[in-house]
Amino acid sequence: MLNPQLNKHGALQHLLTIDGLPREILSTILDTAAPFTEVAEREVKKLPLLRGKSVFNLFFENSTRTRTTFEIAAKRLSADVINLNISTSSASKGESLLDTVDNLCAMQADMFVVRHAMSGAPFLMAKHLADTGQEHIHVINAGDGRHAHPTQGLLDMYTIRHYKKDFTRLVVAIVGDVLHSRVARSQISALTTLGVPEVRVIGPKTLIPAAVDRLGVRVFHDMRAGLKDVDVVMMLRLQNERMKGALLPSPQEFFKYYGLTADKLACARADAIVMHPGPMNRGVEIDSAVADGRHAVILPQVTFGIAVRMAVMSMLAGS
Amino acid sequence: MLNPQLNKHGALQHLLTIDGLPREILSTILDTAAPFTEVAEREVKKLPLLRGKSVFNLFFENSTRTRTTFEIAAKRLSADVINLNISTSSASKGESLLDTVDNLCAMQADMFVVRHAMSGAPFLMAKHLADTGQEHIHVINAGDGRHAHPTQGLLDMYTIRHYKKDFTRLVVAIVGDVLHSRVARSQISALTTLGVPEVRVIGPKTLIPAAVDRLGVRVFHDMRAGLKDVDVVMMLRLQNERMKGALLPSPQEFFKYYGLTADKLACARADAIVMHPGPMNRGVEIDSAVADGRHAVILPQVTFGIAVRMAVMSMLAGS
Amino acid sequence: MLNPQLNKHGALQHLLTIDGLPREILSTILDTAAPFTEVAEREVKKLPLLRGKSVFNLFFENSTRTRTTFEIAAKRLSADVINLNISTSSASKGESLLDTVDNLCAMQADMFVVRHAMSGAPFLMAKHLADTGQEHIHVINAGDGRHAHPTQGLLDMYTIRHYKKDFTRLVVAIVGDVLHSRVARSQISALTTLGVPEVRVIGPKTLIPAAVDRLGVRVFHDMRAGLKDVDVVMMLRLQNERMKGALLPSPQEFFKYYGLTADKLACARADAIVMHPGPMNRGVEIDSAVADGRHAVILPQVTFGIAVRMAVMSMLAGS
Repeated sequence: MLNPQLNKHGALQHLLTIDGLPREILSTILDTAAPFTEVAEREVKKLPLLRGKSVFNLFFENSTRTRTTFEIAAKRLSADVINLNISTSSASKGESLLDTVDNLCAMQADMFVVRHAMSGAPFLMAKHLADTGQEHIHVINAGDGRHAHPTQGLLDMYTIRHYKKDFTRLVVAIVGDVLHSRVARSQISALTTLGVPEVRVIGPKTLIPAAVDRLGVRVFHDMRAGLKDVDVVMMLRLQNERMKGALLPSPQEFFKYYGLTADKLACARADAIVMHPGPMNRGVEIDSAVADGRHAVILPQVTFGIAVRMAVMSMLAGS
Repeated sequence: MLNPQLNKHGALQHLLTIDGLPREILSTILDTAAPFTEVAEREVKKLPLLRGKSVFNLFFENSTRTRTTFEIAAKRLSADVINLNISTSSASKGESLLDTVDNLCAMQADMFVVRHAMSGAPFLMAKHLADTGQEHIHVINAGDGRHAHPTQGLLDMYTIRHYKKDFTRLVVAIVGDVLHSRVARSQISALTTLGVPEVRVIGPKTLIPAAVDRLGVRVFHDMRAGLKDVDVVMMLRLQNERMKGALLPSPQEFFKYYGLTADKLACARADAIVMHPGPMNRGVEIDSAVADGRHAVILPQVTFGIAVRMAVMSMLAGS
Repeated sequence: MLNPQLNKHGALQHLLTIDGLPREILSTILDTAAPFTEVAEREVKKLPLLRGKSVFNLFFENSTRTRTTFEIAAKRLSADVINLNISTSSASKGESLLDTVDNLCAMQADMFVVRHAMSGAPFLMAKHLADTGQEHIHVINAGDGRHAHPTQGLLDMYTIRHYKKDFTRLVVAIVGDVLHSRVARSQISALTTLGVPEVRVIGPKTLIPAAVDRLGVRVFHDMRAGLKDVDVVMMLRLQNERMKGALLPSPQEFFKYYGLTADKLACARADAIVMHPGPMNRGVEIDSAVADGRHAVILPQVTFGIAVRMAVMSMLAGS
């Protein structure tokens, strides 16, 4: 199987990473998400698409925020949602990841939403499901180590398309801690696949992986130069908890050079949009005046995120 | 806006505190709750009033008991309920209360049930919703610091009305740790608004706020004198966890002077009812013989509490 | 009342232990479970049998795995499920078990699923419900101390019946840490009641209770001798967390003598089935080659466990 995310008919079987997803699949997800944004406006925010399905939120790493977005998406599709915070349970009884998966499959799980500190854990699960002939069960990666967080990447693409319509004329800058980000690589991959002609990466040398220019992006260490005439500014969260000291002088220093202020943002196009995956470190990677300003589309990202997750879940359930 | 809890048509927009709620609103809530007590008796305890609505239990401070009552009330109204225990999540990532609120609003929340250690947190949220033009989202205060716990106050009023019918002839005594109680002030306010002619407060000097007599109550430090001929005895929970030593000699000493025993209760009217917000410290503020005796209406309070919460939720959702 | 689990019409009122349940009740539960295994195969895994009922998962001891099986079973029956992890809540506020129960009853609970470290806690609850005239509320024991875990025992019986059809010709061996197991005694009781002519118990002297032979079982300390010609091998989990040192030399030593390997399993009948309640300690009580081999019915046990729990819940709700 060349791409473990697609079934033999080329339909989405799992969502593990944006890397390698063909343009048509990306576009289909975005197209599918569009009507789901309208569900949220209705009096009764409920569709029966996953009625009677059992969706397991399998969080080996705590993330209330991400878990919540998937829980809402699944409940609006009428699924039965079961939250499992595994750090405090079977894992401590020495049960392996795959034994846990086998057990939940035996309980007739239909879908796993997985967050794991270990890169590759969702792939391992998907492979195991294939090996045991359980292709009717689907895996969605909700963040694995530093590797990927594909629904975040997808909602970013949805947001850009919503505001800018056409990917093929854009200059997009990704700013900040690219090294520790599990979304940056997905974003670069998705932007390229969707036809964005120029993707830039901005950050200090210590936070930009050496190999990033091989992905076809332009690297800037000076923020004003990097923001010059961009259409989209994608801020990254400064992953304090991942940082092993020494890479950064201080949050204040970081803010001085790479924090997005109105002043620096003035280098971008007048109609530029500013994005952030949240939660924001105000005064570290972004100034409150920008976070709450007219360029920011940070809250619409959250709204679109629910629709994108509903789209992915309904596509998987229908495959 | 004079009262942030009411919308421009005078209908309930948020439930933040009982203080300042007009008598008609209080009465409407109690009237609305009455039929909900019958729902609980049915074979299928379910009404579709909040179907497709997203209710967030936003608990910045742990309280399984209170969270459970709101969760049941919301589920019986067919809402989608999402429990967020925030102490262990975004808060630790440094996200501010209002950023959290903004994010959940962007996920199309319809209602927040908020518990917070900080007095005023639910007000801050309600103000923020008004400032950002999101009046369709409602806030229910489920306890903020020492300040208020309005659904507790309302269920107390419901209970009194249920057993005593007419507020305007009652003598009501509130007994115990008034200083640290977030319900005592709400109770005094509600009783006064609903026309109770005599409200008494009973407790040691160290646990009665100096200013309480300005609220129009009579203060007693001798329990037997305070209980003389009362119709309703409202016990308060001794907030061990809030007590900073030094205010009390010992639980045994407290029980001796202010613990409700059958003997002391004999000073009250023969048909007096005994209330307690739970969980009880048996043998500290109340003797088991009284807690389980014929005057106690402590468990009916719990039952009425579900109905009152359903009433508030359905009124807010309909406003 | 001779058997607190049966009501005056002889129907199941609570499920507290398998000990003393008459054969007809056991058979009825297994018969009732059968069609529920088919629900799980449907597109919409949902039945309305518990619609509008409030099922409380009351876990005084953490067990994500067990809690999940009951949560799924209840949700597939359309119940409203409320999870209460009590170790971190009221218990720490000093509220007693029975006060907690009274409160939840006052919230119109219909069913309690109880896990408690203290043997007898579910019995205490059932007795309290009878004493307070609340026979319409049902208790399911989800594991109390070392005492019982009846739904585990029932799903084991379901599994044996599924694969072996007739109990009355079987030789069944229970292997391992019988002393600390809360299922072993239930299993012995159920097997005997259902007519199994020969039940064996295999384990080191330190892990077999002295009185076990009074239950009518044959005791073996040599595993190969004990497995000779058995139809069913029921492995027990080595309760590391319950072991107080000194009873076992080491996990490696245990595996050498009592770990189920293909080699030892060859002593059993060629069509023997191997069961394990999970989670497995691979390489301690069972070898991976056996756990994943053709004799193992460990994952079907999990599947049948959901059906059995749905059966028990629907029988209780209908009684």
